[in-house]
Amino acid sequence: MFRSHTCGELTQANINEKVTLSGWVSTLRDKGFMMWIDLRDRYGITQIILDEERSSKELFETARSLGREFVIQVTGTVIERASKNPNIPTGNIEILAETITILNESALPPFTIDDNTDGGEDIRMKYRYLDIRRNPVKNKLIFRSKVAQEVRKYLDAQEFVEVETPVLIKSTPEGARDFVVPSRMNPGEFYALPQSPQTFKQLLMVGGLDRYFQIVKCFRDEDLRADRQPEFTQIDCEMSFVEQEDIMNVFEGLAKHLLHTFKGLEFGDFPRMTFADAMRRYGNDKPDIRFGMEFGEITDLAKGKDFKIFDEQELIVGIAAEGCNSYTRKDIDKLIEWVQRPQIGATGLVWARYNEDGTFKSSVDKFYSQEDLAAWAERMNAKPGDLMLVMSGNTNKVRAQLSALRMELAERLGLRNPEVFAPLWVVDFPLLEWDEESERYHAMHHPFTSPKPEDMELIATNPGEVRANAYDLVLNGNEIGGGSIRIYDKDIQARMFELLGFTPEQAEAQFGFLMNAFKYGAPPHGGLAFGFDRFVSILDGSETIRDYIAFPKNNSGRDVMIDAPSPIDETQKQELFIASTFTGKE
Amino acid sequence: MFRSHTCGELTQANINEKVTLSGWVSTLRDKGFMMWIDLRDRYGITQIILDEERSSKELFETARSLGREFVIQVTGTVIERASKNPNIPTGNIEILAETITILNESALPPFTIDDNTDGGEDIRMKYRYLDIRRNPVKNKLIFRSKVAQEVRKYLDAQEFVEVETPVLIKSTPEGARDFVVPSRMNPGEFYALPQSPQTFKQLLMVGGLDRYFQIVKCFRDEDLRADRQPEFTQIDCEMSFVEQEDIMNVFEGLAKHLLHTFKGLEFGDFPRMTFADAMRRYGNDKPDIRFGMEFGEITDLAKGKDFKIFDEQELIVGIAAEGCNSYTRKDIDKLIEWVQRPQIGATGLVWARYNEDGTFKSSVDKFYSQEDLAAWAERMNAKPGDLMLVMSGNTNKVRAQLSALRMELAERLGLRNPEVFAPLWVVDFPLLEWDEESERYHAMHHPFTSPKPEDMELIATNPGEVRANAYDLVLNGNEIGGGSIRIYDKDIQARMFELLGFTPEQAEAQFGFLMNAFKYGAPPHGGLAFGFDRFVSILDGSETIRDYIAFPKNNSGRDVMIDAPSPIDETQKQELFIASTFTGKE
Repeated sequence: MFRSHTCGELTQANINEKVTLSGWVSTLRDKGFMMWIDLRDRYGITQIILDEERSSKELFETARSLGREFVIQVTGTVIERASKNPNIPTGNIEILAETITILNESALPPFTIDDNTDGGEDIRMKYRYLDIRRNPVKNKLIFRSKVAQEVRKYLDAQEFVEVETPVLIKSTPEGARDFVVPSRMNPGEFYALPQSPQTFKQLLMVGGLDRYFQIVKCFRDEDLRADRQPEFTQIDCEMSFVEQEDIMNVFEGLAKHLLHTFKGLEFGDFPRMTFADAMRRYGNDKPDIRFGMEFGEITDLAKGKDFKIFDEQELIVGIAAEGCNSYTRKDIDKLIEWVQRPQIGATGLVWARYNEDGTFKSSVDKFYSQEDLAAWAERMNAKPGDLMLVMSGNTNKVRAQLSALRMELAERLGLRNPEVFAPLWVVDFPLLEWDEESERYHAMHHPFTSPKPEDMELIATNPGEVRANAYDLVLNGNEIGGGSIRIYDKDIQARMFELLGFTPEQAEAQFGFLMNAFKYGAPPHGGLAFGFDRFVSILDGSETIRDYIAFPKNNSGRDVMIDAPSPIDETQKQELFIASTFTGKE
Repeated sequence: MFRSHTCGELTQANINEKVTLSGWVSTLRDKGFMMWIDLRDRYGITQIILDEERSSKELFETARSLGREFVIQVTGTVIERASKNPNIPTGNIEILAETITILNESALPPFTIDDNTDGGEDIRMKYRYLDIRRNPVKNKLIFRSKVAQEVRKYLDAQEFVEVETPVLIKSTPEGARDFVVPSRMNPGEFYALPQSPQTFKQLLMVGGLDRYFQIVKCFRDEDLRADRQPEFTQIDCEMSFVEQEDIMNVFEGLAKHLLHTFKGLEFGDFPRMTFADAMRRYGNDKPDIRFGMEFGEITDLAKGKDFKIFDEQELIVGIAAEGCNSYTRKDIDKLIEWVQRPQIGATGLVWARYNEDGTFKSSVDKFYSQEDLAAWAERMNAKPGDLMLVMSGNTNKVRAQLSALRMELAERLGLRNPEVFAPLWVVDFPLLEWDEESERYHAMHHPFTSPKPEDMELIATNPGEVRANAYDLVLNGNEIGGGSIRIYDKDIQARMFELLGFTPEQAEAQFGFLMNAFKYGAPPHGGLAFGFDRFVSILDGSETIRDYIAFPKNNSGRDVMIDAPSPIDETQKQELFIASTFTGKE
């Protein structure tokens, strides 16, 4: 038996008990006549002591041979601590060691195993197994496990069936790039890894399973941004005989349950906003509504006043940065530089101070009177002391730019409090978006999303205006889930593929099995998927999803710990009927 | 709202209520003046009626336009049924239809959606989504979901943390063949899909996570036998600071919990048997102990009696088939043919009847006296009325052959009752097995399994005799789980790789990250993995794991429903820096 207790559970109630603990040497202090060892395991830290009066020479020798991160087993007696540490649960006791056994030695770790480590990101990724010993990392993994468990309990209680859908499936050209897997038994053919179990969960509905869920790995071979991983986890759900409202109710319930369980928060009905309103009010389909700073459109007010720059633009829109009248000219110049960065790409900013005395001072005083600026202020809901910041240009672009500025200002003003939670449903998404490059429509969600019945006839005349029965759940400016009512009529599905530029042959080759399934009594159905990595991280007050993944990959898709991907044997490739065409760095 | 109730919940308590149901038309009966529709959903079947007196002409017309598997919505009033059906929960009521809405039509399904369908295996796989509508299939998927949920609850309560390990990992030459995934961002390199999360769970132990589990997909690119799938699911577990006994206790507890929850069975301590005993007594390391028919070795008794065939053999061993003295000569000839099939490969069978009067009649009466045969009977625990069947040859081969015969006889004698559960731990597996072909040792479990400390010195002198701290959990003749205490000392691990024929460079290239991790204080650890698909199927009284997988693949690794794997675009291959070398059917 390696231990009688863990390093996190002994208290004054155990005094005088003889115990055995096992764990890692966290710290060692040697005062000559006394020694202290902080012994650490997953559950906590317990202090071990040796003293000249009560401990043998040999024991001191063993203790002095220890180093940080050695794995040891200690037997001894629980005694009351002279100088108590109220910061840890075991802080009132210590163990007077009788025997110390070295279970394993340790080389000096490449960074300290402390809450505030000296290790940089790269080294911690390479030695991820050591990073996991640190509380902040370990606790995030445990938190994730608890959330998953709670999600399952909730859905299980509502008669959802967890069904495992296959990982080795079929490549489809729609959506992101697939990872593929050459088949040895079917030469020249490939499996693909699923970007989501979308078609399978729809087939389960055709199969009458009624309420499906799965916490499932999905895969996208995309160029990785900082917050994306090639493999990620979804809470994937689907229901039959439901309307949009039914689905939103169930998963709003789930979100409330998690916010209650893990944050102690109670919510009424989550607010809802149409996509069009979200874009108009926040320039963004996933607005962070923990704070205001709503957009004020002033196109009609700002045009026709001889300010050429504005006269030429499609949209003129601004926000009021609360209390930022105090910004110096230099501060404002920096903001202008910030919006001109290539990532944002704005040409500039017009600004107007709303002074405490009610007067205005702007960068465009030549063109706009105090009354003009007061009218702007009203649109932006600005108050004395605020700084109005105005951008102009093509509607979609300027909204995206001003939205980025709004988020940046919120960050600077401390308005993005991770302990405040502001959920929001965004509804009535467009069914399609026009892609300039390929000169065709793309599905905004995916090709299985149902148009709103009342917009059905627009499909023939004005497809871009058709709204979908689609909805996103937004939390603190992050899309944490999204879904839709699906098409379940084979003719509408065929029409949809046509709209998306598929020939009937292509549609048949790629989705024939689904359209075939729809011939045999597909029920009305719809669903939703949560980005589990993101949901967990936001729930835990963070936006770094990588921290909540045990073994994440870097931005080149590499696991630097195991050094994957890596070359494979030629014989392995031969068996798979493939050859590498890579001839060296390009 | 599509429904007020499901098709499984209305009873006499609901009489006179107005309800709305949605589901599939299961059967339609038309007597002219009355019609009956059996409406089916996931939850059950409810009978809908129309009658001339109370239902409109239009309603009859709609009902007559329906076909099997049409999806309809029915509104009506719950009434008491004249002829009650006690076999279903809703059998006391029916719905007098007021409106019927066709939600979706259905073509005639390719097989009947009944518990006993007319569809063969192939057609049901192609239309798996229709097969899932059938109760036997649907119920298996729901059962699987419930078992998974119960496993998680049990382990969660014992402080196990579910950690998701990566799916895109690194190819290793040890074990079965890997599926590989070409990397676009790392040209010429490949990920592999995990055969198990073995190294990751060990790294989690190095990371101090202490108790890990995961219900996880694993992948093996093997030639498929009838009961194997290229992707399968494991309950994967690992613990730190434990000995073999600790791990066996936890997972025996889990198995008992599931047997209790789903079968209402109570068990004391599971019996244990060494690998050596299992081979000797049953010729098999996963013996079915629901019945006896233990092996009786008679080598010493049967040799030296001028029967040449036996005199030349290493092992002579038999079993007593209970009550099979009644087998005719023809029956016995058929048994002999059975063991001579290439899958078994025996040369023949010696038989001896144990007559009710205590005499013997055998195929070798020329060589063996009644007393000789009585001595055999004692070894085989045969009783009057039994038939003794004896095989001889090389020890390993003949054990395997006789074990196959034992199982076949048990099947014929109805001894393999799926409602009887006989769990068994098999322990003390050999660490290594000699592979004639490659002329080297292979790891019997995997290269991370720890030798028994008391056998450690045999490693240098007689590696084949070294026993491992490894254990399998066997249920009804199936290995449902297996595990081991791991090596946690980097030097022993290096020695193990050497034994397995790795050069230090190969070991470093493949497992350098693990051996490196072992430098930094690896704790004593061990674990176990259950084959979830198999565990679930046996628990449900079946041995066909494919039935418990929502979308299984066939023996060529194909998903015949979605037609995967399939060819992919040339551009897709180019992006991945691979070319197909397959030039046509070989």
